[in-house]
This record gives sequence, structure tokens and C-alpha cells, in this order.
Amino acid sequence: MSKSRKIGLAVAQMGPVHLADDRQAVVRRLIDMLKEAKARSAKFVVFPELALTTFFPRYWMSEEAAIERFFERTMPNPQVQPLFDAAREAGIGFYLGYAELTAKGEAFNTAIIVDDNGRIVAKYRKTHLPGHADHKPDAPFQHLEKKFFEVGNTGFPVVETMGAKLGMCICNDRRWPETWRAMSLQGAELGVLGYNTPSLNIHWPEPVHLRMHTHLVSLQASAYQNAMWIAAAAKCGKEDGFHMIGGSVIVAPSGEIAAQCVTEEDEVIFANVDLALGDTFREHVFNFAKHRRPEHYRLIVERTGAGAPLPHDPDALN
Amino acid sequence: MSKSRKIGLAVAQMGPVHLADDRQAVVRRLIDMLKEAKARSAKFVVFPELALTTFFPRYWMSEEAAIERFFERTMPNPQVQPLFDAAREAGIGFYLGYAELTAKGEAFNTAIIVDDNGRIVAKYRKTHLPGHADHKPDAPFQHLEKKFFEVGNTGFPVVETMGAKLGMCICNDRRWPETWRAMSLQGAELGVLGYNTPSLNIHWPEPVHLRMHTHLVSLQASAYQNAMWIAAAAKCGKEDGFHMIGGSVIVAPSGEIAAQCVTEEDEVIFANVDLALGDTFREHVFNFAKHRRPEHYRLIVERTGAGAPLPHDPDALN
Repeated sequence: MSKSRKIGLAVAQMGPVHLADDRQAVVRRLIDMLKEAKARSAKFVVFPELALTTFFPRYWMSEEAAIERFFERTMPNPQVQPLFDAAREAGIGFYLGYAELTAKGEAFNTAIIVDDNGRIVAKYRKTHLPGHADHKPDAPFQHLEKKFFEVGNTGFPVVETMGAKLGMCICNDRRWPETWRAMSLQGAELGVLGYNTPSLNIHWPEPVHLRMHTHLVSLQASAYQNAMWIAAAAKCGKEDGFHMIGGSVIVAPSGEIAAQCVTEEDEVIFANVDLALGDTFREHVFNFAKHRRPEHYRLIVERTGAGAPLPHDPDALN
Repeated sequence: MSKSRKIGLAVAQMGPVHLADDRQAVVRRLIDMLKEAKARSAKFVVFPELALTTFFPRYWMSEEAAIERFFERTMPNPQVQPLFDAAREAGIGFYLGYAELTAKGEAFNTAIIVDDNGRIVAKYRKTHLPGHADHKPDAPFQHLEKKFFEVGNTGFPVVETMGAKLGMCICNDRRWPETWRAMSLQGAELGVLGYNTPSLNIHWPEPVHLRMHTHLVSLQASAYQNAMWIAAAAKCGKEDGFHMIGGSVIVAPSGEIAAQCVTEEDEVIFANVDLALGDTFREHVFNFAKHRRPEHYRLIVERTGAGAPLPHDPDALN
């Protein structure tokens, strides 16, 4: 087995951010958790998706109103700069999700990786936007990611920084196996993400416990099948009465949960993750070069939606 | 939600088949389980991988010796015909795995689907062959699938039969997310497979409990992520002293285990599976046509092994 390569890893779950909470208060909470992570000797901390505001896609409003109130035009900006400063001072890198408005006026659901020198070394824009773009007045809340955001144009970036190859995604991306494969095929050793997952499904009466179950089982299988560590940070609890699941986790390449949040509040979990554990899986069961057969995977890129079965004649196979 | 479309589904797990057990005795066991499945009103029963013989890739021998003793040159052949007859009489379809020698002399790890009229309607040849081709004299046993079998040339067939769209794979294929995506992109509603999974990993000292854990978590995530039912049948227990895991299961499109074997012997489990449950997931969270982004999945077919990260410049993303 490979020589161990350990990195102190923290996940900073956030309790609710209400409409009335300003960015200054939110950034103070992030800095508090960064300090707690530092006290456990973390070198990297994962914050949630859209960490600076409430999960605003639940509210019907115009794009202009959303942009005015919830989007960041620059990063860091003066309100977020104290987090960058605190992280650089602590010598800690971080993942942070926020709503991004570009100079060209494009709106994305974005996350960045900031290294221990305070430099933005990677930026990811969410690929798999869930929900809808139309107003659903009869639903208890909206899920307007398809209205407020454009589909990301970055692919799934993998960056080598602070001694680790980090892959990025956001929230709903974690349920799509293509997300993790795109990372592991670039050598990712640790996948990081934030999420906001309403516990109520507005589209059909899905039993609430399944929201936690499918979250965990997706991350566990994806960590294993891609021989990666995965660290996932929730924003959770009741934001102005609208409940979202917690369950922030650090998952090992064995598919085992190494650490898991047990509250729906601001909570830091830590694991001293050995990246070399993934090497073992990459050498054997998931030695891609030896075992993968892309000639049989072509439908994955040739089709978007499901189609008819390919022609198949068992009598011709003799 | 869709109108329910239920099919009585059984999984027939097999206890060990020893070197000394002949095919006649094995076929009798399969027929006994078929009758038990029928008594529970099953319309389809899933038998294991290489169901007719012991898991012979554990033994070092020449290809010729393996073919002579463990492969089938025709299907059905006189020894297996009684199973086909019993199934047709019972009006039950089945999945059966066996070692196939073609007329051209090619050797495959194969499975067939036989419909309720006793007709072979699909044939699958295993794509992801695990293990090695060389002799490992210091290992407690071998895993010579790469020696005895050629890589399958069928892709992952999906056939509509007996009112359901069935997708096929075998054993190690279940750990590869591409397997399930190739099926769900052809509209599969129920994926069926057999497996033989040694509880000891000869390549590295993997904790034994992980063999069961990664088996279950892979099937649960794949069922969910592809909005499919999955039925998996083990051959298990100690074959001439070599132990393999049980854990045969029927998994729902919610990722929940609907039925699971609790022995390491011949054991039939049953579930009255509603194919329409998958429709709900296909309409919403996994509405592929609405949410998939194949333009960001290209590495899956463009690379076999993992490579360097793609170029990424966050400063250019403004």
C-alpha cells in the first residue's frame, strides 16, 4: 500500500441563514467555524453551497430582484474579505459556494477553492440545475434554480493545491455519477461540495427520510466507485420556516462515513484523511486503465434523455 | 404518479457448488428454487453468475482444461434442458449465468434471459472482468477471469419482455456506474445480475466487511441514480473451503432494499415490484432529457485510465 499522505480536513455545516441575516453576520459565522477547524489542525475547510445568503431559489421573484439582493459581482468583495483574511492568517484553504454575477451579466450557482495563501485557485459553476423556471403558485415553496441560474460552463475542475488533487461540484451534481467520473478521470483524490436540500419534495409526495438516505448512499457509492474521499457541507435547518436536511459528511474511498454532522446547526466535523487510501482502490478494483471499456459507454455522451433499447439479437451471438 | 405495473420478482441465491457437484444436481437445485418462486407467484427469477459450476476462476489450470470441464457449448444443452422445461411449464422467465464457449471457440462469462415461453430473448457477455491472467502462487486462491474469459462484445442489452424492460450485467459490472447508465439510457426498468464475490481480497488486506458494504451501497446508489429496480443473485458460502459473500437483494428505485437474503445457502427472496415507482424518479429528479449535460461528460469515453486535470484558469472566468 502507498505511503500515507494525510490532510486535516474539516466540513463546516451551516444552520439556517434567514432573509433578515446580512452577509456580515454570515461571514462572522464562517470565520468562527474556520477558527474551530484550525483548532483541530485542519488545513482545508468545506463551506456550503450559496453560503452567504438564504436559499433564495425557494422564492418567486424577478431575476433582477434576485441579482440585486443575493448575487456577488466580485469575489472576494468587501463583505467577504474578512473570511479570506482569516483563512490566509490561519494558513487554511477553503471551498465556498455563492451566487455569481459575471461582468457580462451571466448568473451562475458557483463555488470557489481558495488556497492557504488566500488565492482563488479554482472556480466551478453548477452543471446539474434542479427544479424549474416557471411559477408554481400551489407549491409550498419554489425551486427556481432553472430560472435564476445558467447551466455552468466550467465542467468539473480538478486542481492540485496544498498537496491534494481536489475536484469540485455543487449539491444536485452529487446525485449524477457522471460528475464523479469526470473528476476521477482527472485524478481527483478528494471531491468537495456544498448543498441546500429541502426535506420536502414539491414535485411528488416523496417520503422525507429518503432525502437523507439518497444523499448518503449517493456519496458513499461515488466515493467508493471513484476511489476518492468526499466532503459535503450542508446549509440546513429551517430558513424562515423552510426546512432543509443536514447530514454533512466526510466519506472515505471505502464508501464508509468517516465523520457526520448530527445537528441542523453550525457544526464543524473533522477527519485526518489519508489520500493514499484511495491509491489502493485505484490500483486494484478501480484500476481504470486495466478495467474500463469506454467502447461500451458511448450512450452516455451520445444520448441526453433515455431512448429505445439498442438492437439486440441473441440468436446472432453464437 | 403513474399507474402501477407490478411484476412478481424472485431472486434465487445459491449456496456453494463444489467441484464434485455435477450439473444434474445443480439443475435440480435451480428447479427446486424455481418452484418455490412460482409458489410465491413470481413471474421472473434471477439465478447467479456461473450458476452451473463452482466459481472455477479461483483455480490455476490451462484454458483447455477449464473449457473442457466448466464451459457450455450450447444453451440449452441436455443437462440444462430440464430447467428450461420446468420454467416454461411454470410460465416463469429467468436470468441464468454460465461459462459460454462459442462455435468460433471464444470463451465468455455469459448470462441469458429466458422468457416465459422458454425462449432465449437476450444474451449478455461480461464487460468488466476483474482479477488477473497470471499465476499468483502465493495467493490463497486465484481470480483468473482475465485468463479464462474474453471481454464481452454485447454491450449492456436491454430487452422488453413479459411486460418489463430488463437490463443485464454480471457481478463486477455492478461496481461501475457506466454499466447502469448504459441500461437506463435504453429505458431499463429492472436490472438483473448474478455474482460470485470472494469475501477475501487477494490483492490487499481489505477488511472483509467492506465486501458486503460496497456491494450493497453500489446497488442502492445505482438503483436510485438510474430510477431502476435491481435484482442481484449471489452464489455464496464456502465452495470447497473458499468463502463468498451472500447478500442477494432486490433494491427499489428509491435506493431502499426491498428484500435481502439472510443465509449463505440456497434461498429464495420475493418482492412484488412496481415498475411504475421508477417512472416517478424518471419524471422528476432523474428526468435525463431535462437535466443531463453530456457535453461535460466527454472524458468518460475519451479516456480509459485517469489522466492529468484538464486546464483550468479561474482568472479567465469573470
